[in-house]
Amino acid sequence: MSALYYGVAYYDEYMPEDRLAKDIALMQETGINVVRIAESTWSTLEPQEGEYNFYHIDRVLDAMHTAGIAVIIGTPTYAVPAWLVAKHPDILVTTVDGQQKYGPRQIMDIVNPTFRRYAEKIIRTLMAHVQHHPAIIGWQLDNETKHYDNIGRYMQEGFVHSLQEQYSDLAQLNKDFGLDYWSNRIDSWQDFPPVENTINASLACAFSRYQRQQVTEYLAWQAEIVREYALPHQFVTHNFDFEWRGYSYGVQPRVDHFAAAQALDVAGVDIYHPSQKHLTGREIAFGGAITRSLKLGQNYFVLETQAQGFAQWTPFPGQLRLQAFSHVASGAAMVSYWHWHSIHNSFETYWKGLLSHDFSRNATWQEATTIGADFARLSPQLAELKAENDVALLVSNEAMDALNQFRPGDAQGNIYNDIFRRFHDALYDHNISVDIIHDINEETSRYRTLVIPGLYAADDGLLERINHYIEQGGRALIGFKSGFSDENVKVRSSTQPGILHRACGVSYSQFTLPEETTVASCNAAIDCSKDNQAELWMELLMPDSGTRTLLRYQHPAWGEYAAATDADYGQGRAIYVGFLPQKTLISQLFDALTSDLDLHSRTSAYRYPLVTKKMRNRDGRGIHFLFNYSGEPLDFISETSGKALLSGDEVSCGQPLRLKAWEFSIIES
Amino acid sequence: MSALYYGVAYYDEYMPEDRLAKDIALMQETGINVVRIAESTWSTLEPQEGEYNFYHIDRVLDAMHTAGIAVIIGTPTYAVPAWLVAKHPDILVTTVDGQQKYGPRQIMDIVNPTFRRYAEKIIRTLMAHVQHHPAIIGWQLDNETKHYDNIGRYMQEGFVHSLQEQYSDLAQLNKDFGLDYWSNRIDSWQDFPPVENTINASLACAFSRYQRQQVTEYLAWQAEIVREYALPHQFVTHNFDFEWRGYSYGVQPRVDHFAAAQALDVAGVDIYHPSQKHLTGREIAFGGAITRSLKLGQNYFVLETQAQGFAQWTPFPGQLRLQAFSHVASGAAMVSYWHWHSIHNSFETYWKGLLSHDFSRNATWQEATTIGADFARLSPQLAELKAENDVALLVSNEAMDALNQFRPGDAQGNIYNDIFRRFHDALYDHNISVDIIHDINEETSRYRTLVIPGLYAADDGLLERINHYIEQGGRALIGFKSGFSDENVKVRSSTQPGILHRACGVSYSQFTLPEETTVASCNAAIDCSKDNQAELWMELLMPDSGTRTLLRYQHPAWGEYAAATDADYGQGRAIYVGFLPQKTLISQLFDALTSDLDLHSRTSAYRYPLVTKKMRNRDGRGIHFLFNYSGEPLDFISETSGKALLSGDEVSCGQPLRLKAWEFSIIES
Amino acid sequence: MSALYYGVAYYDEYMPEDRLAKDIALMQETGINVVRIAESTWSTLEPQEGEYNFYHIDRVLDAMHTAGIAVIIGTPTYAVPAWLVAKHPDILVTTVDGQQKYGPRQIMDIVNPTFRRYAEKIIRTLMAHVQHHPAIIGWQLDNETKHYDNIGRYMQEGFVHSLQEQYSDLAQLNKDFGLDYWSNRIDSWQDFPPVENTINASLACAFSRYQRQQVTEYLAWQAEIVREYALPHQFVTHNFDFEWRGYSYGVQPRVDHFAAAQALDVAGVDIYHPSQKHLTGREIAFGGAITRSLKLGQNYFVLETQAQGFAQWTPFPGQLRLQAFSHVASGAAMVSYWHWHSIHNSFETYWKGLLSHDFSRNATWQEATTIGADFARLSPQLAELKAENDVALLVSNEAMDALNQFRPGDAQGNIYNDIFRRFHDALYDHNISVDIIHDINEETSRYRTLVIPGLYAADDGLLERINHYIEQGGRALIGFKSGFSDENVKVRSSTQPGILHRACGVSYSQFTLPEETTVASCNAAIDCSKDNQAELWMELLMPDSGTRTLLRYQHPAWGEYAAATDADYGQGRAIYVGFLPQKTLISQLFDALTSDLDLHSRTSAYRYPLVTKKMRNRDGRGIHFLFNYSGEPLDFISETSGKALLSGDEVSCGQPLRLKAWEFSIIES
Repeated sequence: MSALYYGVAYYDEYMPEDRLAKDIALMQETGINVVRIAESTWSTLEPQEGEYNFYHIDRVLDAMHTAGIAVIIGTPTYAVPAWLVAKHPDILVTTVDGQQKYGPRQIMDIVNPTFRRYAEKIIRTLMAHVQHHPAIIGWQLDNETKHYDNIGRYMQEGFVHSLQEQYSDLAQLNKDFGLDYWSNRIDSWQDFPPVENTINASLACAFSRYQRQQVTEYLAWQAEIVREYALPHQFVTHNFDFEWRGYSYGVQPRVDHFAAAQALDVAGVDIYHPSQKHLTGREIAFGGAITRSLKLGQNYFVLETQAQGFAQWTPFPGQLRLQAFSHVASGAAMVSYWHWHSIHNSFETYWKGLLSHDFSRNATWQEATTIGADFARLSPQLAELKAENDVALLVSNEAMDALNQFRPGDAQGNIYNDIFRRFHDALYDHNISVDIIHDINEETSRYRTLVIPGLYAADDGLLERINHYIEQGGRALIGFKSGFSDENVKVRSSTQPGILHRACGVSYSQFTLPEETTVASCNAAIDCSKDNQAELWMELLMPDSGTRTLLRYQHPAWGEYAAATDADYGQGRAIYVGFLPQKTLISQLFDALTSDLDLHSRTSAYRYPLVTKKMRNRDGRGIHFLFNYSGEPLDFISETSGKALLSGDEVSCGQPLRLKAWEFSIIES
Repeated sequence: MSALYYGVAYYDEYMPEDRLAKDIALMQETGINVVRIAESTWSTLEPQEGEYNFYHIDRVLDAMHTAGIAVIIGTPTYAVPAWLVAKHPDILVTTVDGQQKYGPRQIMDIVNPTFRRYAEKIIRTLMAHVQHHPAIIGWQLDNETKHYDNIGRYMQEGFVHSLQEQYSDLAQLNKDFGLDYWSNRIDSWQDFPPVENTINASLACAFSRYQRQQVTEYLAWQAEIVREYALPHQFVTHNFDFEWRGYSYGVQPRVDHFAAAQALDVAGVDIYHPSQKHLTGREIAFGGAITRSLKLGQNYFVLETQAQGFAQWTPFPGQLRLQAFSHVASGAAMVSYWHWHSIHNSFETYWKGLLSHDFSRNATWQEATTIGADFARLSPQLAELKAENDVALLVSNEAMDALNQFRPGDAQGNIYNDIFRRFHDALYDHNISVDIIHDINEETSRYRTLVIPGLYAADDGLLERINHYIEQGGRALIGFKSGFSDENVKVRSSTQPGILHRACGVSYSQFTLPEETTVASCNAAIDCSKDNQAELWMELLMPDSGTRTLLRYQHPAWGEYAAATDADYGQGRAIYVGFLPQKTLISQLFDALTSDLDLHSRTSAYRYPLVTKKMRNRDGRGIHFLFNYSGEPLDFISETSGKALLSGDEVSCGQPLRLKAWEFSIIES
Repeated sequence: MSALYYGVAYYDEYMPEDRLAKDIALMQETGINVVRIAESTWSTLEPQEGEYNFYHIDRVLDAMHTAGIAVIIGTPTYAVPAWLVAKHPDILVTTVDGQQKYGPRQIMDIVNPTFRRYAEKIIRTLMAHVQHHPAIIGWQLDNETKHYDNIGRYMQEGFVHSLQEQYSDLAQLNKDFGLDYWSNRIDSWQDFPPVENTINASLACAFSRYQRQQVTEYLAWQAEIVREYALPHQFVTHNFDFEWRGYSYGVQPRVDHFAAAQALDVAGVDIYHPSQKHLTGREIAFGGAITRSLKLGQNYFVLETQAQGFAQWTPFPGQLRLQAFSHVASGAAMVSYWHWHSIHNSFETYWKGLLSHDFSRNATWQEATTIGADFARLSPQLAELKAENDVALLVSNEAMDALNQFRPGDAQGNIYNDIFRRFHDALYDHNISVDIIHDINEETSRYRTLVIPGLYAADDGLLERINHYIEQGGRALIGFKSGFSDENVKVRSSTQPGILHRACGVSYSQFTLPEETTVASCNAAIDCSKDNQAELWMELLMPDSGTRTLLRYQHPAWGEYAAATDADYGQGRAIYVGFLPQKTLISQLFDALTSDLDLHSRTSAYRYPLVTKKMRNRDGRGIHFLFNYSGEPLDFISETSGKALLSGDEVSCGQPLRLKAWEFSIIES
C-alpha cells in the first residue's frame, strides 16, 4: 500500500459485447490501478454441478496483469446458482416471512451444512485454479455478508445449543430473561419454542447476537479456506456494509464488524451516501471511522462507493473528487467504484458505474480521470495517513438490539442509529474528529473524551469500566437510556442510570415523552435560545448534591426536573443528558465538557459545511484537508501554514482562502 | 363492597428479587386493600404437564391475609405454557394470517377440545389447592378473553353446524344472505366453503356473531368450573376490555359484553386512556357506562387501569387522583392498577406500574397514597353509588360488524366506533350522563330519551320496538344509516330508513359523500355558524309532510335536501340526522329534542372541561362530582349546596368555586 | 346497430322479490332497449355438478322478448361455484401472495385444464339451451378477464415451454436477458427456477407478456366454443376494462387488448370514472379511443358504466346525460349501466344501479329516462358515428411492464400509466382528438402526428418504423426514456435514445432526478413562465448539430443541457422531451410541432372544461359535440354552423352560445 489504490469492480461476465481491451485502455486513461472481480458469479464459474468455466477470470487476470492493473478476487458465494437451489431447495434461508424464494442474492442459509459443502467446493476450485496468478494482490471473502434474518432450523438449534452451554440450569435462564412473564417459562430444553415470535426482548436480543456470531464464524471459515491457498503477500479482506436506508445510514445491525474483522488482514467496506445538494460527507466520515477502528487504526479499503450511482446521485461537477479525497482523509487506502460500467439488464441497471450504458467518456468519467492522476501524483504524501484522535464514540450492537426492542413512543425503525447519527453528526459538523470503539479497555485511556449515546444494554463490567475511565480523568458525554438494562436486557432494579449513577451524579425514577417540550439553560456557556427542543425521550432527572444542572425542561408539570447534568467524578467529569438534543446543543454540551482541554480531535474553529480533517502521513507531516461541502463558495482564514498539495502554493496561517462550490484543499504542514 | 376497593395486580413470579414483605409494607402505606394475582402464570403453576408448583400463590395468599389485603385469583388460562404448545401445536389459533406462532399471550384456539381439556385441568387443580384460603374474595375468569379472530377448523365447523340448526333449507339461507351474487350460492352443506375470504357481508357478519358467541360460551364454561369450588361469599368476575387503539377506544368488536356478562356476579373491566394534556375522562365515562349497564346498574370493578403506564402517560400532578375519582363517579366499586411494580423483562417493560423498576417512592406513588387514604376515609359516602340516568345510548355489535363491512368512502378501521364515540363524547362534553344499552325492552321505558348512532343492521323487531318506544312518549335522536339493513345485513327494499321511516317521518333514496359540505340551520334554536361540516356520509333526506326540517345541506347540487329532521310520532318525537355532525351540533340537536324535558341526566349547565357527575349514595344522598379536566384553573358558580367531602367545607348554591389544574371536588347534598 | 343501444345489466337471480314484470315496465319507461344477463351466475345455473337450472334465464329471455328488449348473454365463467372449488381446490389461482381463497370472483387459474373442462361444459350446456331464443342479439365471453397474476404450475411450465420454443440455445437466453448477473444464469432447462421472485426484469417482463398471451388464448378458446352455437346475426363481444385505481385509470397491464380483441366481432368495455366535481370526461375519452381502435375504428359497446355508482359518484343533475353523450361522441354504439337495480347483499351493495335498493323513481333514474328518449329520437343522426383523427398516441404493454420495473426515483405503482395519462390528458384538455395505437405499420401513414410517451422497451423494428414514419413526413412528439431498451429490456449500448437518436437528433449519456428543477424556453412560441416544473425524470440532453433546443433546465449544475429539442428528419420533424412536463407545456410542445398543420384532430380553439368532439355520421354529416365539463355556465362563440339536435335550433358560426353547468350541445353541420 505504498500508493493509493484507485479501483473499480469489473465484470467481464456481464458485458453485452467483448469490451476487455477497450475497457482496459480506458481504465489506464482513468488512472485505475486495481479491479475487483468474480464475487457473485458462481453460476458462471460453475454452470452445472462440478462443471467449471474460468474463461472470464483467466482472460481478465491476464489482461489486467499485462496492463499493470492489480486484481482482487472475491469468492463467489453470495449468490447461488439455479441448479443448486433446484437440487437443494433447503439452502434458501427462512426468515419470519417464510423461506426466501429464488431470485435475489444473499438469500442462502449460511449455517446450512449443504450450502457450506457446495460453497467450500467452489471456493477451493477457484482458489486452486488462480492462486499463482501474479495479478492477484488479495482476496475478498464473500460480499456484504449478513445473517439474512435467518430463523431456520440450524440457526434455532444452534442458538438453543449455545444457551445450553451457557446455562446448565434453565431456572437461571428463566430468571435472567424474565420468562415467567406471560407464561413464557421454559422448563425443559425439549420444549424450547421457536424464538421468531417471542415477546421477550431478552430472548430476542440473545438470538440476534447469536445470529451475528454466525456471520463472524462464517467469514472466519471462509478465511481459513482461502488462506490455505493465498500467497504471503496477498491480503484477505471483506466488504462490510452499514445499515441501509437507501444509503449507508448507521451501525450494521446484522454483523458485529469488530468481531468479524478479526479474520481479516485489511478491513474493507462500502459506503454509499446522498449526493447532489444532499452531499454532506457525514457517511464517509462515520463509515471511515468505524472501518478504521476495526483493525486498530490501520488504513482500510473502500471497496465500493458510488460513481454515478442512482439517478438521484449523479454527481454535480466537483463532487466525485470531493468524495474521493474525503475517503482518503478518513484513512482509506483505496477508493474503488461500484462499478466500471453500467449493467444492461437486471436489478442494478440504474445503479450506474463510472461509464454509462453507452461506454462513452461522460462528464463523471472525465472528473474521475483527474482523481486518478492526483492519486498517482500525491500518493507519496497521502498514502498510509494515520488519524490521531483523542475523542471516541462508543457503539454497541447489543445496545442497538435492546433499544430497538423498546423504541420510545411511536419511533419506527432502527432508532439506535438515529441517535448514533445525531451524536456523530453533531461532532462532525463541529469539526471534532472521532474514532469509533465498541468496548472500553486499556487502549481507551488514550482518548481524553468519550461520547456514549444510547448504551441501553450493557453488562456491569462495561459500565464499571466507563466509571473507571472517568474516575481516572476521562471525560464522558452520556446519552439518555444508557445503563438502564443489563446484558440480558433486564432492566436494573437499582437507581437509574444504573452503575453510571455513580459517575454521573444524577438519578431518575420516572420518564416520559416530550410533547413540544423545550429545554432552558442553567449555564452561561450554553445558549438554548434556539434548537432547544427535547426530542424522542425525556428522563426526569434529579441531580445528586454537588452535581451541576446544565439544562432544565420548560414544562408546566416537569419544570422542576433537570434535563442535563454535569458532575465531577474522581479525576474526571461526566455530562449526562436525559433527552435527545438537536445537533447544535450536543456540540455545546461537548464544548462545556471539554473547553478546558486541548484536543487533537478538535480540528478547527470552522463549522460545517467547511469540514476539516487533520491526519499524519508516513513522513510524520501533518496533512490538513479543507472540504467545502456546499454549492456556494466559502471564504475563510487559514488556520495552518504549509504547502497546498493540489496547487503547489505555499499557504500561511491567517491567509484568506477561498474554496469554490464542492472544492477542497490539502495542506501539508 | 361496603368500602371502595383500591388495588393493584401483583406478580411475585416476575420479581427480580424477593420483595414480598417490602411490597406489602409499601402497599399498606399506599392504602391498597386488594390485589389481583395468578392470571397468565400457567407456566409457573404447571411447569411441566401434571407437575404443579403453588409456591408463589401460597406465599402471596398467606402474606396478604396477614396484612389484611384481600386477593382476587385469576384463572391462568390466557397464556399457554411452552410444553403444551410443543405437545399440541394445534391449540394455537388460526386466523386469516395463518396459524399464530408461539410467543404472545391470547393466541389459543378457545374452541379446541384439547386446549379445553388442559385448561380445565389447571383450573380445577388450582381451585382445589387454594379454594379455602381466607384471603380470597373472588375469582377472575381468564383475562380480556376474545375469540382471537379464530377461523380454525372447530370454529368453521361449529359455525356451519349453527347455520344448519337455524336453516333446514339452504335455499332460504341463499336468499337471506343473497348468496347467488357472484356465484356464491351453496347448494349442499358439504360444499360449505371456508368463510374467511368471503365477499358476502351477511355471511361474514353471521360468522363474526358466532365467534362472539364462543367467547360467551367459553366464559360460561369457566364460570361453571370455578363455581364448583368457589365459596358462597366469593364473586366471579371477568376483566373485559374495549376496542384498542393504543387505549380503550370503543365498543369491543370481538365480545358481546352484554351476553358474556350473564355468567358473572360482578362485571369487571380495564380502562386505559390518553393522559397528560390529552386526558379528558371520556374513556372513563363510556367504559364505565357500558360496564355499569352489564349487570343492570350494579357497581363494577375497574380491575385494571393505568398507574404510570406508557411513557407518554406518566401522569401530571393531580391526574392520578382525578382519574380514580372519575371511575368512582361512574359507579366503580374498585380502582385497581396495572400494576404494582414495573416489569424488568419482556413485553410490558415500558408499561409502568405504580412503582418504577427501582421500587422507589416516586411522585406517582406518592399521589396514590392520597387516593388510598381518601378512599378509606370517604367510603361511607362513596361506596355503592348509583346512577339515575334517564338518557341512554343504544349500541350493537351486529350494527358495528355490518357498518364496518360497508364503510363510507375511504373510511378505515372501526368506523362504527368513531361514530359511537362522536355521539357519546358530544353528550359527555355537554354534561349529559348516559347509560349504554344494547336492546329495547320493557326496562327501556325508564329512559326519557334514546340516542341511536349507526344502527345499520337490526331486525324488524328492534326497529318496531324503537318506534313503539317513541310512540309511547319517548324521544330519540337517530343517526344516519340506522335501519338500513336487516339482521342478515340485507338492505331493506322498503323506503329508507326502513321501519324507522314511520317514527322519523323522513325518507331517502339516494346518498353521497360530503366533500367540503356544510349544513345550514332551519331552526332558530340551532346555530350552524361554525362547526357545521357534514362529515363521512350524507343522506339526501326528504321530509314527510308534517316533519320539520332542522338542517339543510349547503351545496349547489343537493341544497334542496334536508340534512336533519324532527317529527312527532304518537306521544313522542324523533330527530333523524343524515350525516355525521360535529360534537357541538350533536349537542344542539339533543337540546332541540329535549329542551322541554327536566332530565336527571342533564347534570349541569357547565361544559367540558368542567365535567360533572351526579350519583346517589346508599344513604340516599346526592353526590356531585366536579372535575376540572384541564391544565388551567377553572372558576365557576356552584349549582349545588352541600358539603365538600375532600375539604369538609360547606358549599352553597351560587357560591363561586375554583378548581385548580386537574383538581376536583365532591359535594354531598 | 342502426340505433343506439341503451342498456342495463340485469340479474333476476339477485332480486329480493319477484320484480320481473315491474322492472320491465320501468325499463320501457326508461327507454332501455338491451339488457345484459347471466355472466357470473354459474352457481345458479349449475347448483351442483351436472344439475342445471335455467329458470331465471328462460323467464328473463321470454319477458324481454315480449317487451321488445334485446338480450346479451354472458358466459358465466368468471365466478366459480363452491362445489367446484370443494371438489377441485387446485383450480384457484396461485399468485405471489399464495393460492387465492374462495370467496371473490376472478380467482381461477384460467390455464388449469380442470377449470377449462368444467367451464367448457357449462358454456356448452347454456348455449345449447338458449341458442335459438329470438331475444338474443349477442354473446359476451366471460367478463373483465385477466390473468389474475397467475404464477401457478401451468403458467410457469407453459412459460418455460414457450421460451424453449423461442430459444434452442440457453446461452442466447442468458445473453439476451443478462442472466449472468448475480448468478442468475440458467444452464439447463431442468433448473429453470420459478419466475415469481426474479430480480431480472427481462425475465419478469417476458413472463408478464406470456401471462397476457394466455388471456388472449383463453378468450379465443371461449369464442370458438360460443361460435359453434351462435347464430350468424349475433355478435361475440367481451367486456374489457382498464387499469383500476378506484376507477378506469389507464392502459390495462394484464391484458393485451389489441391481441385479445382479434377473437371478437365487437369490442366491449367498461368505463368508470370520478364524478361530481371531479368529472372531466378524460376516462370516457381515452377508454373510448382505445376501444374504438381495437377493431379499426368500428363502433364499440360500453357494456358497463356507472349509473349512481359509489356514494361519491352519485351524479349531480345533468352529469348522467353528459356522460352518456360523451360515450357516443367517442364512437360508442351502446351505453349500458352497471346495473339496473342496487344489490341488497354482498360486495357491491354500495355500487348503486339506476334504481336504489327501494326501486323508486329516484332523481338519477328520472334523468336516465331523458337519455333513453333522446337516444331513440336522435339515433338516425348519432348511430354509427366515425372518428376522423389524424393524431395518434402510441401505447405499449411491453413498454409499460419494462418502465414499471425501473420506476424513476421513488415513483410508485403503474408509473407508465401516469405518464400516458399526462400526455393523453394534455391533448384532451387541448381539444386534440386522438386514436390510440399499439404499433406502427402501413395504416399509420394516415396519421400526421404521433405522440409517443415512455416507449421504454421496443425492438429495433418498431424504432426503425418510427424513424421511417418521420422520415416520410410524419411528426412525432417523443417522451423521455423512449428507445432506451430493447424488446428483452436490455438497455441499448448504443448512444441513447437508441435508434431514435437518428430521427430526434439528440443524445444523452447521463440522467438524474429533477429536484425542484424548472425549465426555461429557448423558443419564442413556448411560454415557460409557469407550469414549468420538470417532473419525475431528467435526461441531460445534448443536441446534435442542426437540432434546435426548445427548452433548457434551470439548474446550477445542469444548466448547460437541453431539456427538449426539435429536429428535422427527412420530410418530417421530431420533438424529443427529456422530462415529464406539465400538461400545458405538453400542449405547447404539440403546437410547436404541428402549428403549421391543418389537423382534423384539432377540434377547437377552446380549452377544457369546454370539450368538443367532431364525428362523421353515416349520412356523411359532421356531428359537433360541445360539452361543458364544469359546474359553472360557459359562454363562448360557436365555431360551427348547423342544427342543434337537442333543441332543434339553427346555430351559425360566430353566434354566442351558452352551456349551463354540465350541459352539452350537439350540432349537425
